[in-house]
Amino acid sequence: MQLEKINKINDIKNLNLKEKNELAEEIREFLIEKVSQNGGHLASNLGVVELTISLCDVFDFTKDKIIFDVGHQSYVYKILTGRKDKFDTLRKYKGLRGFPYKKESPYDYFETGHSSTSISAATGMARARDLKKENYHIISVIGDGSISSGMSLEAINDVGFKKTKMIIILNDNGMSISSNVGGISSYLSRLSLNEKYIKLKNKIKYSMDDTKVGQFSYKILSRFKDGVRNFLVPSKYFEDMGLTYIGPIDGHNINELEKVLKRAKKMENPVLIHVVTKKGKGYRFAEETPEKYHGVPAFDKTIGLQETKKNTYSNAFGQALCKLAKKDSKIVAITAAMQEGVGLENFAKNFPERYFDVGISEEHAVTLSAGMSVSNLKPVFAVYSTFLQRGFDQIVHDVCMQNSPVVFAIDRAGLVGSDGETHQGIFDLSYLSIIPNMTIVSPKCTEELETLLKWAVEQNFPIAIRYPRGGDSLSLPPLKKVELGKWETICKGKKIAVIATGKMVQKAYQVNKENNLNITLINATFIKPLDETLLKTIAKKYDQIITIEDNLIHGGLGERILLSLNEMNFQGKIKILGYHDKFIEQGNIEELYKQEHLDNVSIKNEIEKLIK
Amino acid sequence: MQLEKINKINDIKNLNLKEKNELAEEIREFLIEKVSQNGGHLASNLGVVELTISLCDVFDFTKDKIIFDVGHQSYVYKILTGRKDKFDTLRKYKGLRGFPYKKESPYDYFETGHSSTSISAATGMARARDLKKENYHIISVIGDGSISSGMSLEAINDVGFKKTKMIIILNDNGMSISSNVGGISSYLSRLSLNEKYIKLKNKIKYSMDDTKVGQFSYKILSRFKDGVRNFLVPSKYFEDMGLTYIGPIDGHNINELEKVLKRAKKMENPVLIHVVTKKGKGYRFAEETPEKYHGVPAFDKTIGLQETKKNTYSNAFGQALCKLAKKDSKIVAITAAMQEGVGLENFAKNFPERYFDVGISEEHAVTLSAGMSVSNLKPVFAVYSTFLQRGFDQIVHDVCMQNSPVVFAIDRAGLVGSDGETHQGIFDLSYLSIIPNMTIVSPKCTEELETLLKWAVEQNFPIAIRYPRGGDSLSLPPLKKVELGKWETICKGKKIAVIATGKMVQKAYQVNKENNLNITLINATFIKPLDETLLKTIAKKYDQIITIEDNLIHGGLGERILLSLNEMNFQGKIKILGYHDKFIEQGNIEELYKQEHLDNVSIKNEIEKLIK
Repeated sequence: MQLEKINKINDIKNLNLKEKNELAEEIREFLIEKVSQNGGHLASNLGVVELTISLCDVFDFTKDKIIFDVGHQSYVYKILTGRKDKFDTLRKYKGLRGFPYKKESPYDYFETGHSSTSISAATGMARARDLKKENYHIISVIGDGSISSGMSLEAINDVGFKKTKMIIILNDNGMSISSNVGGISSYLSRLSLNEKYIKLKNKIKYSMDDTKVGQFSYKILSRFKDGVRNFLVPSKYFEDMGLTYIGPIDGHNINELEKVLKRAKKMENPVLIHVVTKKGKGYRFAEETPEKYHGVPAFDKTIGLQETKKNTYSNAFGQALCKLAKKDSKIVAITAAMQEGVGLENFAKNFPERYFDVGISEEHAVTLSAGMSVSNLKPVFAVYSTFLQRGFDQIVHDVCMQNSPVVFAIDRAGLVGSDGETHQGIFDLSYLSIIPNMTIVSPKCTEELETLLKWAVEQNFPIAIRYPRGGDSLSLPPLKKVELGKWETICKGKKIAVIATGKMVQKAYQVNKENNLNITLINATFIKPLDETLLKTIAKKYDQIITIEDNLIHGGLGERILLSLNEMNFQGKIKILGYHDKFIEQGNIEELYKQEHLDNVSIKNEIEKLIK
Repeated sequence: MQLEKINKINDIKNLNLKEKNELAEEIREFLIEKVSQNGGHLASNLGVVELTISLCDVFDFTKDKIIFDVGHQSYVYKILTGRKDKFDTLRKYKGLRGFPYKKESPYDYFETGHSSTSISAATGMARARDLKKENYHIISVIGDGSISSGMSLEAINDVGFKKTKMIIILNDNGMSISSNVGGISSYLSRLSLNEKYIKLKNKIKYSMDDTKVGQFSYKILSRFKDGVRNFLVPSKYFEDMGLTYIGPIDGHNINELEKVLKRAKKMENPVLIHVVTKKGKGYRFAEETPEKYHGVPAFDKTIGLQETKKNTYSNAFGQALCKLAKKDSKIVAITAAMQEGVGLENFAKNFPERYFDVGISEEHAVTLSAGMSVSNLKPVFAVYSTFLQRGFDQIVHDVCMQNSPVVFAIDRAGLVGSDGETHQGIFDLSYLSIIPNMTIVSPKCTEELETLLKWAVEQNFPIAIRYPRGGDSLSLPPLKKVELGKWETICKGKKIAVIATGKMVQKAYQVNKENNLNITLINATFIKPLDETLLKTIAKKYDQIITIEDNLIHGGLGERILLSLNEMNFQGKIKILGYHDKFIEQGNIEELYKQEHLDNVSIKNEIEKLIK
């Protein structure tokens, strides 16, 4: 067993090539074992086993620095830097992180989670090194989906211009999360047709070296240097940007990889090494449908992941949108490389010409939607709450300033659980509600999502619908009719008024029912605008109000209500429940609710405290 | 006079080539006249006179649609679409906008102001057209600085992949606002060496067409299509992305321009036309130093803009940073193409190796800074409030989540005046204060900016310093000592407590003094964290509190104070002064304060209302 020999960083350096190849297989088994037990990111990690082994062998990460873009492909690195024993706690509350995490290891140099940050961060670190006249290598490992995102391209633009010394490993598996789109991606796949490329190279070599005509051609060609270089190595794109391009390299051949990495080590310019890997490599099920093995729950490794159509908000959204699109040809759907995640598979199948996957390009996606809406389509941009942060300026400047009817279907709002800090959707109410002209709604159950979506595509202003990961915990009848800025009274009690939104309506309902608390429960369908009329009535009738939301307190629903009540000269007591001013770690959602005092018991206690 | 004939859209179509050339000169004179009288964007508009004439002649913008990226180069278009008579009100309150504005003209199809949105918007409009089977052209006019920004590259990536029919005019003047940086920019300048390029083309044509060897070479070359195309036309970058490239074209030759535009009109694929123009063309002073004639105040056109070193916050920042950098070699400065705007000219001269202009790349700039800070530099990213919106996710994810000591020097916070809606810096307090680990401060005067900056670069957490456009209206002694989360009591009175921040401290001070209002005035140096101790004292002592800030009420200082006071069970009255939930138009700042009830008279009235 080679894996037994790997207990701390640089142990890998004691293995010979045969042993490293054995280790690769053992790591694959280990990953399949652990991820099938606990859930996690599988396919991407299976794809980078040899690459990570080679990197850790050739470089010394006690001084060299590596940044994994997106970061969910860092499991192999975690194993090779002394963390294999912690894999039973992977992605669990207080357990091993699913992403690089500085507090977990001194060899995690930069934390990642969102896409396309690694080249920028590496550039910063490289320039710091150079200014301080230090001497070590800085490496960014980035996928083909992530490198096509605007932020990466901005970084490449800067790195190439200033010739900052660093190594970019382009891990090209022909897909980001779902299959890849975009000009750069199709360009890369042209580069990666390895066989054809090698044949080409041989042919031109032959005609250039061995015949007179060839030699003449070579001379002509030489005059136009760029032309020639591109002619021999189809790398013009990166070379034009000022990077040295090496590739494509077989990403599962440790021998070849190490040779190339050693070569790159000697270069003083920025280098891009184009490595071709297979996502899911070595696990049949994952090789066949890698997108299904991107992030997975626990499963039986012998039969693979089983299809379980759950009644999630994502599915409810996808179904509802298909239904609406059948009747209204103006409806179009936009996603930024998240077809499955946001529930758009059926839409893509049924309305291919009205479905737009723009790749990991949230900025473009927002303004593309704005453009569509200006020309009288009804664009629905489906996106995770945390990733929409990338489009903040575009929402302000291109959608809301022009008051364009774009619908934002914001999935994974609130806590998302085991993806941790980088993925919690706890900011959206805060950053969206400050934007003039924006309307924000949230359904209290999956059925109500359909009601709200149907209403939203009929309006002529921007609307954000935010909904959580997963499905319902109990069934409540959906709103019958949606009216702009009108809340729903779920039940009337005598003691205090609880104004909750989204998923928190279900929690408050349950708490009230189970404990006979006799509260008035309001479903704040609209986070913006508030139902000022109902709020006035409540302010008159009650002197105890609690607000509950799955968002930060700062800038959230409760704060908006507090502001309104202040203007109404409300003299009673208001308690705002939501998340405090800190990032929230990984864990199962119920555990995290408990930690944040938003579990049912805590909610009950808060209500009882006010009643007393 | 040709300009007299231009009174509405398409009047241009009645002019022959000679008349169009005359018109170009008359428009230049008109622009120099009007902008020197009123201020505005000069150099960029002088550069696109022939281009805009050609576009309006070849296309019909009653049905074809055009989007001007950034938008400040749309003056000529405004003239040609029937708005020349309004130029005396240019950029004034309720006057002609300095940017495209839909309510101003049916021929302004998409509003712009921030950079790099036009290709995304055009793509959306083109796809809407195609889905609806309509038939017209969609054109994006974009500068070389803007096209290198991530958002543009995301759009090109998408357009090229899906082959969306549209025309992109790359207006290449070799500079965005200050001089251009980045790999794409240097690539473009290689493409633009027109002469060399034309010689090259002739040479290869000759050897290929007319000699046997040439014909043979051509055959070999033909096998490798991409190689050949790039060989003949150095356009590989855009062609690789899937666009048809035409250029470079002389952007001041109407005849040549119209020929090419007519050719592009017939194409069914996305086309990029590379037009080379001279910024400031036709006005000697502007040709010599175009960056000085980007956005200008009124000036004497016969002698040009005169250097007036004003005591602005930008200058105070630049001077202070230079002073600090002299003593501390870890300090580095980052800008996104705004050297002059943010006051970094001297820093760039004195510390060239520690100065990083990344081009219009705010996303990259933020994470680059995060990377530098991880490696123990002290990065200061100087940026306009409104442009920092582009880096929101990166501030959350790459800076604050890792609690990295990056300093954000946020210039043009609050109202900026005549640039209008797209540029008002009224959101920063709201979107920054929701981010955990972020500290926000604001100086009450230019001198205090130095004090705060000095303090900020010594801390080990992220800090935003926000300060307004312009300078001080009165002189107040700066803070002597900065303590985290401590406010300053400016004067003690008996009646009510006014908590103001930044520029508003000066206003409140003046109002109090001039009217003997006897208020207690607090300088809320820290917007986050609040001075909870002082706030408690205030809450006990006063039952009337007013907060004043140059930011939205939603999410601003006042709302944070209200939240704290609510937790303290404060029973008095709080009045929050700031901007209401809408975008704020162009105008001189004092006019806008009046409109928003933040002028001295309104502040006085609010205070007196509470005193009563």
